Amino acid sequence: MQLAEIQNTLSPELKNPKLILFAGDHGITEEPVSLYPKDVTWQMVLNFLSGGACANVFAKHSHIEVEVVDAGVDHDWENNTPGLIQRKSRKGTSNFLKSKAMSLDEAKDSILHGIELLNETKYESTNIFLFGEMGIGNTSAASIILSHLTEIPLRKLVGRGTGLNHNAKENKIKILSEAYQRTGKLKDPIEILSEFGGFEIGMMAGAMIGAAAQRKTFVVDGFIATAAFAIAFALNPAVKYYAIFSHLSEEEGHTVILEHWKIKPLLRLNLRLGEGSGALAAYPLIELSVKFLNEMASFADAGVSNTDAK
Amino acid sequence: MQLAEIQNTLSPELKNPKLILFAGDHGITEEPVSLYPKDVTWQMVLNFLSGGACANVFAKHSHIEVEVVDAGVDHDWENNTPGLIQRKSRKGTSNFLKSKAMSLDEAKDSILHGIELLNETKYESTNIFLFGEMGIGNTSAASIILSHLTEIPLRKLVGRGTGLNHNAKENKIKILSEAYQRTGKLKDPIEILSEFGGFEIGMMAGAMIGAAAQRKTFVVDGFIATAAFAIAFALNPAVKYYAIFSHLSEEEGHTVILEHWKIKPLLRLNLRLGEGSGALAAYPLIELSVKFLNEMASFADAGVSNTDAK
Repeated sequence: MQLAEIQNTLSPELKNPKLILFAGDHGITEEPVSLYPKDVTWQMVLNFLSGGACANVFAKHSHIEVEVVDAGVDHDWENNTPGLIQRKSRKGTSNFLKSKAMSLDEAKDSILHGIELLNETKYESTNIFLFGEMGIGNTSAASIILSHLTEIPLRKLVGRGTGLNHNAKENKIKILSEAYQRTGKLKDPIEILSEFGGFEIGMMAGAMIGAAAQRKTFVVDGFIATAAFAIAFALNPAVKYYAIFSHLSEEEGHTVILEHWKIKPLLRLNLRLGEGSGALAAYPLIELSVKFLNEMASFADAGVSNTDAK
Repeated sequence: MQLAEIQNTLSPELKNPKLILFAGDHGITEEPVSLYPKDVTWQMVLNFLSGGACANVFAKHSHIEVEVVDAGVDHDWENNTPGLIQRKSRKGTSNFLKSKAMSLDEAKDSILHGIELLNETKYESTNIFLFGEMGIGNTSAASIILSHLTEIPLRKLVGRGTGLNHNAKENKIKILSEAYQRTGKLKDPIEILSEFGGFEIGMMAGAMIGAAAQRKTFVVDGFIATAAFAIAFALNPAVKYYAIFSHLSEEEGHTVILEHWKIKPLLRLNLRLGEGSGALAAYPLIELSVKFLNEMASFADAGVSNTDAK
């Protein structure tokens, strides 16, 4: 139904689907908020480019092309890193416990970079995007962004990320609460992005706005992508008509935010991997829904008796 | 994990998947338990054979071959009905409100026909089956079968079927309660099958036992398939190791029975179509799980830093 409405036809199509993975680093990783070192961000970017990640495996299954964007990774790439879309603003955000993650201008630019990316001619024939992300520390940014953009208390939106234990999670909540106190409650989405980052979240929010502006569908992955969606929605509520929420992440705050918005995602599989994996897992269901509309015979076509109860 | 255990390898494969649709008619449709006339059963069989049903569309997407079995449909087929596997016991069950649905011998035979079918050489190279069904009236049989095989009260297992309204559903509960009183509580699965039918449920239960005996995986569809599973499980508990529960049907009793067994199916999409549609919708996730195991690089392979916290 949603695809039929977006495309204004009873025979919607999915054309040249693309997975765009936005990567960025986070200064907050100076604090003990993540189990994995920051280097994992650039190492996983190389893994995406060489085709070894879960996202690559799932994308290949559905014939979806994978693109990787450096939105702000703390790494100098070799001169020749084929396939990488370089849109680095700088090498990761500042530590938002101590200062703004990025300037207001950088926040605006990251959104605009996302909108501009979707305008590139290579995407003309694509009418559905999947957006994923990679960025050690970005569940911290996502939690505090979502708390500022809703009335939900911060601690309900903080989870275990890549696998913190109970004590480490409590400590993460303490650190993020301090960061919350640094600014006090904020409302403006650009200001919130500038205070907490990250570059990959800003670019993804921009890409969502760009997709909606072109009346193209996009698939929302998990918790981080939902924070990007919250920024995009605050700037342009129409994005909601173009968004398919793919899965309920096991990251604790995802249940809280989706219930708050009364959104039922397609899958609930206790995944918490990021990199678009949930969006990719749901994509076959989206394909089936389109084929269901286009290829199935009606009862009348197939000579099947209908009920008299209508 | 489950596929790796079944196939006893870390590199499980899915080979030549088949959807087998079992069709049968039900004498209980003499009572007002269904919104649709009994003729829909044979009409849908022809629709499956000509490729126009939802099951065909979903199966084609995943390159799954569809086979249709007449296990007891009330119809004389034209001499030449290519593709139909004819295993008719008779033209549907007797009205179980008034008498046994089938004799004990017929019940045993329907199970054996299912086991034998899976032994045919054409299935040798198949290691995963999806089982679906078609049979107007078969939610009634499934509800009463599941109530007898568990301690769950009948009324909790009765639902709207193809779309009864509240009053019609209450009337269906009344009719099924009367049928329950006719026999009193039963325990023996063959006796339960003989009292309530149907032929498609018996053959599917046999096919599940046959698959397990060959150490092959099968995907359980919705409410009716779950009743077939309950019979198979009562006869041979080992079937559970080979069963993947695909989806939570919107048919009310399905939630009750799966929670009773503490089974979490892969999908919860409020489908209630039968014909293997839920199993087919979940199949891409099963494919992704296999590819995830076989094709994804480990952190060590990809040169990604691990956590020190292990």
